[in-house]
Amino acid sequence: MSLTVVGSIAFDAVKTPFGERERMLGGSAVHFALAASFFSEVRVVGPVGDDFGDAEYAVLRERGVNTDDIERVAGGKTFFWKGEYEWNLNIRHTHVTQLNVFGEFEPKLSNASKAADLLFLANIQPDLQRRVREQCPDVKLAGLDSMNLWIETARDSLVQTIAGVDLLFMNDDEVRMLTQQPTLARAAREIMAMGPRTVVVKQGEYGAALFDEEGFFALPAYPLEAVIDPTGAGDSFAGGFLGYLGSQDGEVDHAGLRRAMTYGSVLASFNVEEFGVERVQRLTREEVEDRYADFRRMTAIEGVPA
Amino acid sequence: MSLTVVGSIAFDAVKTPFGERERMLGGSAVHFALAASFFSEVRVVGPVGDDFGDAEYAVLRERGVNTDDIERVAGGKTFFWKGEYEWNLNIRHTHVTQLNVFGEFEPKLSNASKAADLLFLANIQPDLQRRVREQCPDVKLAGLDSMNLWIETARDSLVQTIAGVDLLFMNDDEVRMLTQQPTLARAAREIMAMGPRTVVVKQGEYGAALFDEEGFFALPAYPLEAVIDPTGAGDSFAGGFLGYLGSQDGEVDHAGLRRAMTYGSVLASFNVEEFGVERVQRLTREEVEDRYADFRRMTAIEGVPA
Repeated sequence: MSLTVVGSIAFDAVKTPFGERERMLGGSAVHFALAASFFSEVRVVGPVGDDFGDAEYAVLRERGVNTDDIERVAGGKTFFWKGEYEWNLNIRHTHVTQLNVFGEFEPKLSNASKAADLLFLANIQPDLQRRVREQCPDVKLAGLDSMNLWIETARDSLVQTIAGVDLLFMNDDEVRMLTQQPTLARAAREIMAMGPRTVVVKQGEYGAALFDEEGFFALPAYPLEAVIDPTGAGDSFAGGFLGYLGSQDGEVDHAGLRRAMTYGSVLASFNVEEFGVERVQRLTREEVEDRYADFRRMTAIEGVPA
Repeated sequence: MSLTVVGSIAFDAVKTPFGERERMLGGSAVHFALAASFFSEVRVVGPVGDDFGDAEYAVLRERGVNTDDIERVAGGKTFFWKGEYEWNLNIRHTHVTQLNVFGEFEPKLSNASKAADLLFLANIQPDLQRRVREQCPDVKLAGLDSMNLWIETARDSLVQTIAGVDLLFMNDDEVRMLTQQPTLARAAREIMAMGPRTVVVKQGEYGAALFDEEGFFALPAYPLEAVIDPTGAGDSFAGGFLGYLGSQDGEVDHAGLRRAMTYGSVLASFNVEEFGVERVQRLTREEVEDRYADFRRMTAIEGVPA
């Protein structure tokens, strides 16, 4: 099946306790698309400026990502984000956010992008997300990510947008903030009442939890010796997740969602091993499958697979 | 096999967003012993005052816990702790700590307690823990818990004490604080180099992770709709864990540790459903096994058990 992602395409400047990069390819749609590309045909929708060059396109194209709907704005500059992580990588400080071409972005999807089977609305302003969703009435499954900023500044719009998707990705603080419920179980139930059939709660270094009508599934994160740069982990997670679903025929079922969570966790774990997209760029499908097998071993209460 | 626990026996005053109790039975050794009692014969070692009465003894004895080594100090008062949890239950404030009889406590183990197969050193001053450990040279397995206070104020003693145990329980912040390593994988490796064969990292509402020579195992926490009082969760976890190991014949192996982690998680999840020991007091073995089965279902990536 085909998969369209709408989100940011960016240059990031990132400093972590383990090094820094002054300018590297980033953005939610980019991290998502590279991760999803291991499983599905992916189309990226988003704006870039003149400074977005062949080298950047090549990173996407070499992984087979379709870039036809990347809108290049003449005279514009690509979205730029600069941030820094503390020694505790869960704590992030944003130093610079230059929206640039993203400030005027009004998504116009080509027929090919509209015709995708799966749609992912990466973390952008919820009105924009909803207008994208409305352009794709026939998708089999729509997923959405958001952030604390939109919960604080555009809650009503966000709730309306959430009502139109099947699968919500959010981190645990955001899920609590959105619902004002103290436990994830209650928060997830409340979000499902808003519309989505499935709620996936991202928990950073602790893993992820999935709630749907059939119950609960949770996975720890992969126990890495070194986490170099967490930027894009959540989008890589969603990319591996929806990318895997896109590789399956037929209806999405609960068993498929469990495998999708695991592939999402695999891709997120590789993403954070190096800066930006550096690790995923040279990742192989074999490495993906090896780590998937690791996840099965490290989570088995009984009957650990060989 | 038999199991001895040395730790605090207390009265707790606890306030959470869901209610409060002005005086209830608590303490690390109590929570541990009640949880472990579902699997093993448990002996509690610790001091109490005159105010520790028949009702408190009865709670332990009704679960078959041996109280012969509870030292009743004439004219003394039982350890008292008063604390409050925020809406985010991960954040706890201590209002009152009255050591009382615990201030002068010098553990003297009876021959029966010394002869136990397993020993758990609950979170007390590390010099005391070490003197207990030295009284029990023949135990098959010794476990230890500690806290940030001792890492800050008695680090050398704590490291020396850790060297003498097989299994360390600590929460993730403490493991990082102790080792100054940013990832749990590195922190665990460093702790294993200090002595313990197994490191169990408690992650509160996120679950727990186990590191040993054979690899890594992690479990999410049980997705409760309501968490009423987290006090004692870590001790209940350790109690379920070591209690289960005590119920098994022969050497402790990696497969047994995985099941022990799960039983520990089961007991911790019940513990937090109500205040203090209220829930575990009336828990049944059948409920324990049902929740164990829930854990197997909620963690299975493939082949979910019926």
